[in-house]
Order: sequence, then structure tokens, then C-alpha cells
Amino acid sequence: MALIVQKYGGTSVGTVERIQNVARRVKQCHDAGDQVVVVVSAMSGETNRLIGLASEITDRPNLRELDVLVTTGEQVTIALLAMALQQMGCDARSYTGGQVRILTDNAHGKARINDIDDARVRADLTAGRVVVVAGFQGVDEQGNITTLGRGGSDTTAVAMAAALKADECQIFTDVDGVYTTDPRVDPQARKLDRITFEEMLEMASLGSKVLQIRAVEFAGKYNAPLRVLSSFEDEGEGTLITFEEEGVEAAKISGIAFNRDEAKLTIRGVPDEPGVAYNILGPIGEANIEVDMIVQNISNDGTTDFTFTVNRSDYAKAKDVLQRTADELGAREVIGDDQIVKISLVGVGMRSHAGIASQMFRTLSDEGINIQMISTSEIKISVVVDEKYLELGVRALHEAFSLEKE
Amino acid sequence: MALIVQKYGGTSVGTVERIQNVARRVKQCHDAGDQVVVVVSAMSGETNRLIGLASEITDRPNLRELDVLVTTGEQVTIALLAMALQQMGCDARSYTGGQVRILTDNAHGKARINDIDDARVRADLTAGRVVVVAGFQGVDEQGNITTLGRGGSDTTAVAMAAALKADECQIFTDVDGVYTTDPRVDPQARKLDRITFEEMLEMASLGSKVLQIRAVEFAGKYNAPLRVLSSFEDEGEGTLITFEEEGVEAAKISGIAFNRDEAKLTIRGVPDEPGVAYNILGPIGEANIEVDMIVQNISNDGTTDFTFTVNRSDYAKAKDVLQRTADELGAREVIGDDQIVKISLVGVGMRSHAGIASQMFRTLSDEGINIQMISTSEIKISVVVDEKYLELGVRALHEAFSLEKE
Repeated sequence: MALIVQKYGGTSVGTVERIQNVARRVKQCHDAGDQVVVVVSAMSGETNRLIGLASEITDRPNLRELDVLVTTGEQVTIALLAMALQQMGCDARSYTGGQVRILTDNAHGKARINDIDDARVRADLTAGRVVVVAGFQGVDEQGNITTLGRGGSDTTAVAMAAALKADECQIFTDVDGVYTTDPRVDPQARKLDRITFEEMLEMASLGSKVLQIRAVEFAGKYNAPLRVLSSFEDEGEGTLITFEEEGVEAAKISGIAFNRDEAKLTIRGVPDEPGVAYNILGPIGEANIEVDMIVQNISNDGTTDFTFTVNRSDYAKAKDVLQRTADELGAREVIGDDQIVKISLVGVGMRSHAGIASQMFRTLSDEGINIQMISTSEIKISVVVDEKYLELGVRALHEAFSLEKE
Repeated sequence: MALIVQKYGGTSVGTVERIQNVARRVKQCHDAGDQVVVVVSAMSGETNRLIGLASEITDRPNLRELDVLVTTGEQVTIALLAMALQQMGCDARSYTGGQVRILTDNAHGKARINDIDDARVRADLTAGRVVVVAGFQGVDEQGNITTLGRGGSDTTAVAMAAALKADECQIFTDVDGVYTTDPRVDPQARKLDRITFEEMLEMASLGSKVLQIRAVEFAGKYNAPLRVLSSFEDEGEGTLITFEEEGVEAAKISGIAFNRDEAKLTIRGVPDEPGVAYNILGPIGEANIEVDMIVQNISNDGTTDFTFTVNRSDYAKAKDVLQRTADELGAREVIGDDQIVKISLVGVGMRSHAGIASQMFRTLSDEGINIQMISTSEIKISVVVDEKYLELGVRALHEAFSLEKE
């Protein structure tokens, strides 16, 4: 008898009929003798409907109240799913984040889970019940309702799996696994049977939308075995995210991730003094803008150029902040470009295989694609290129590294 | 500085615009220096929408899960109202029933409030905040979400007022006060400035839809001063529900209530033995059918006739139960009628004024209305008549007792 945590996203529970399909799937697993905890999101469209109501009132809703509002979305789903299970003769009980007691900090809208009380859930599992938990939500020490941020249901599932020491955490999505790259960009993309946790972490952080990065981090922290599956197909084993590298060591590259949501900013001719990076990035951080890649070129005549990327939606704001900094520091100018994308090769095999980088650069060069920035980690190489080259670049790299073959 | 609890029903918060109107009203009261706790219902239509979702899954939803589902309705309203208040510069904080901690028994769908923790609410009021509380809901000892049943938001408001020892509990509705009778039935109906608690209790229990009976009972139990007001008119003092009889003693009759939801059942020729009432009503109670009026005629040849009324929706079920009882007891027959209504005169003045009953019976007789059953209490007289006589009876009595005059 295994203990399985299953997570179904908003599309998978988008209608009453789909909720009934999920119930059938859960019941199958339960009938096979497993203990099942199900984590669900709000029905698709519901969260946006609720945010729409708030936006009729104010552009800047109080974050505490926004959490009170949007968490009703998952609460509706858990009740309906528990009813559907009971209707099929499968005893089930629903819990909001506050009821489980998923304890978080008080950062409304992007709270982090500090602790999970597993007592009630375990008691129900022991009594043979399926437990249905609202994803995305928790409570702080004072009992205020919090949310983990968009996509936080994955995090809830992984955290529940970790707290319960589950045998597997299954993330059901609208895709049937993790692919070597996005099949919509390259039809040659191939589904991976397994991928290492570290690779998945890079893929997630690089814009692959299969899993939320925080969920992957959580899974890594607690060694929770994770599997990505399709909620619309009954067949298929999905992709297992493993913690061992065995079975994947032969592959140099596991996949190609990309992110269209990038914009690039450069401050030129900054006096090259100690603390310059802090002077530039400090005000950006204070403006709540997340910075991704950072490149500082070598000094030239006592000044340096400093380039970084931000989320495209933060571009205008970041540029304003940077211009003020430039004026203060006496820098020459600020330039930027929000028509760029980031393409990344990811693979643990990269560690022990030389020449991956040069093969990547040559492939892009052969296609006439100019590389604007480069950044590397142990298991990935990212380049920034003009966004018009995204599809061409991804396909060329996919073929160059033979990712379509097992 | 007074402490006021205000309650707004589903129609008053039916749209975002109406929620903003409520916010303006609340802010006025707060700006005038009062401490304000606001209790709100779900936006009108929302509870039915949620029940509709459940009914797509099952005809008999689990009551625990149904409570989890429908309580999201008020949770949406409290968040939106708190946002609207903040947007107007009025600091506010929302609480679900579970967050306040409105502790109830575990009778899902019709729970009763056992206790209210006023600590958080008081702290917010002291800090100058408006507190917005979700009506209709609570939690049991185990933290399961419960509901007080339809219209339970009135009860929440009164219970909050009692717990906080509020100076007044204001129930805002779509009418501007309590009337001598329903103005849709008799255009001569007059708004009352005051009514005693006992009269209101009778009016509510007799089908006057202004306040829920449980709320009135609660107000009586805790001596919470209650006022009914219109949420759509800025002017008007509404109707104050008083605990003293001063100022109303001159009036013999305060109002005429009626209830269309009645059906009558008679079991004829029951052997008249000790315990016969229990033998007849016991099975009815076990079938969860509430009995209203009960009349037992005097014994005749060792048998008796026994008549009672039930809610019209329980008529068929009650008749089945009664037929089985009749077979067991060897009674002659079971007859019934679900085309009846109950009309009641209510007034504390009745106690000290003789002749009210005979004036009532003569008035109905003059109009050719046959009285099928009679039941009396200290401050009311109820008669059952054919439902076709409802309007005629109400108008005739309203005129006979000059209720249109102050």
C-alpha cells in the first residue's frame, strides 16, 4: 500500500464533468489499495473572475483581502470533488489550507510554507478516506488566510507529500510529461521518461511551464519523488523526476528551455569602483524587480558596462530606476531591449562532457543568430538572442544535439 | 461613541456597485465616531449558483461538503467589502466565521452558535478598524465549517451584537421597516416605528420574512437592541424592536402576519387513549417534519380526531407517515388539505383587551370566510382558512382593527 499525493490543476477541474473525471481517477487509485491525498486548484477561470471583481473596486487591492477573496476558488473545488467521490461510494473529506493547517509566513500573495500539521489528514487516511486539500493556500500564525502565489498548488502538493513522506507526488497537467523542448516550437520534441531534479529545476526556472519552480525546489529539499502526468489520458507513465542520475548519465543534454518574457538593460560607462554592482542592482531590488541574468564586462578606461535581464513586464519600470541610478553615478547612458528571448541547454551530462558550449555557439552561428549575452551554470548554458530567432534557434539546437532520439 | 453591528443581506451586496454603496454607508457611521462591525451575506444569486454546481454532481450532497462549498459565497463578499472600505480610506479587516471563531455545534446546514470569541474583533475595533464578518457561517469544535441555515446572517449579526454587547444591531434589508402586514397584500399596510420583541417573534414565526426567527430569538435571549432599516434609502429610522412595552401599550394589535406555506392533516377516529398524541406525532418528528398548529377535538364514542399543520413541502411525506400510523392505531381515516393558509393577529395589547378574538372571527364571518382551525397564544390569534381567502381576510382584518392609523 503506497501513499500517493495527486495534484490536479485548474484545467483538469475546469468543469463539473472534469471534476467527476478526476474523482474517477482518484477512486481507481484508492480502489487499487493506495492511500490518496488530492490537491486541487480553482476551476479554470475562477481565479480570474474573482480578481476581476476586486479590480472593479480598486487597482490596488489590499493583499490580505485579495487572499481572502481568491482562496474561495479552491474551496469550491475541494467541496465539489469530495461530493463527487462520495457520490461514487468513495469516502472523502475536504480541507482548506487553514483547516489542514498549512502554516505559512504572512507574505500575502506569495507566502512560503513553514509547517504542515498532518494529524487530521493521517487520521482520515487511516480511516480509509480520500483527503482532498485546497492547493495554493494556507494560514499564518494569526490565522490570516494566505496564498502561495499563482501556480502554488504544485507547491502545496509537494509540501503535503514531504510532510506525509508520500511514496510519490503526481502532478497531473494538460501535458503528458516533460519534453526535450516545447512541442509547439519544435515538433521533433520528445517526451522524457525521467529527468533529474536539478535539470527540472533549471527547466522550470528557464520558463518551461510544466511545474512551478518553487514546487520543484520544495521537492528537492524534501526528496519527494515527483511525477508529471496527463490528466486527460489514462495511459502513460509521464515523466519521473529522479534524484539519482543513473539512467540519464548517457545523455549530455536533456532539454532546451526558453523564456520569451525577457528584457535586457545596459548601463554604459559606469565608473568601475568597488560596490558598483550593488549601487546599480540595489535600487532595482528595492523596486521589487527581479533580476535574472547579470553580465559585467571588463573595465575599460576606468569605466565598465553592466547588463542584466528582467521580466518583460518590469522593463519600463526598471529602465526608469536605472536612469536615475545612471544620473547619480554619472554613467554615460542607459540602453535596453525588450525584444529578446533566452534559450538554454539543460543537462547534468554537461558536467562531464566538454565542448557542449562551443557546439551550441557554433550551431547558432551557422544559422546566423547573433548571441547577445551568455550565462552558464554547472548544468545549463543560456544565451540571449533577438526574439525573432527563438523558433529557429530551438529547432537548430534540438537537431544538433539529437534530442529527438532516445 | 457607540458600538454598532450592521447586517446587509444578499440583495444589498448583490453587485460590486452595491457593495460600494454599503461601504459608503458603513464609512458614514464610522466617520461619525461609532465602532462598526458589518455582517454580510453572499452576493444575491451566488449561493444558488454554488448549490447548482453541487446538484450537477449529486441530488444528496454531503452536508459537511455543502457547507464548505456555500460558505465561499460570504467569503467573497467580506473581501470585496473590506477592499471597498480601504479604497475609501477606511481601515477595515475581514473575517470568516471560522476566523472570528464563531463556534457552533456540528449540525451542518442548520448549526447553532454556542460561543463567539470576540478577542480579534475587539482588538481591531480598538485600533480604529471596521470589522467585516461573514454571516451565516461558523466552525465546530473540530474546525469543520458549518452554516446556520438560510437567512442565518441575521443570526450572526445578532450573536455578534450580543457577544460584543453592542449598542444596536441594525438589520439592513430591502424593506424600510416592519409593517402592519405585507404591503403587497394590503396597500393600507403601515410601517411601525417600534414593535416589541415578542410581537416580532410571532411575526417572524408566522411567515413575515423581514427577519429570521432564530435571529429574533437570539436578540431576545441576549437583550440585543435590534433595528430594521432599508439599505436602499438613506433616510428613515426603520423599525426599532424594543424590549419594553412602553409606547406601544395603547395598540391592541400591531400587525397581521400570514403564512402560505401551510398544509393540514387530520387523522380521524383514533382510539382516545393516553399517549395518542405521542403515538401520532412521534413518527412525524422522527421523519424530520416540523409540526406547527395542533388541534385535538374532544372525544366522541371513545375515539377522537387529531389535526395538525406542517410545511407545505412536507405534506406528501407527512401524509404517508400518518397513514402508516393510522393503520397501526386502527384509526378510521387520514384526510388532508394543502390549499390552506394561516392568518394571525399579533399584538401585546391583546393580553389586556378582551374581545379581540371575537372581533376577528366576526370580521372573517362577515366576509364569508370559513375558519378551519384556531390556535391562540398570549399575544396572537391564528386561524387556518382556505388559501383563496388570504388577501380578502388580511385586508378585512387590517381595516377592522384600523391598522392603517397610528
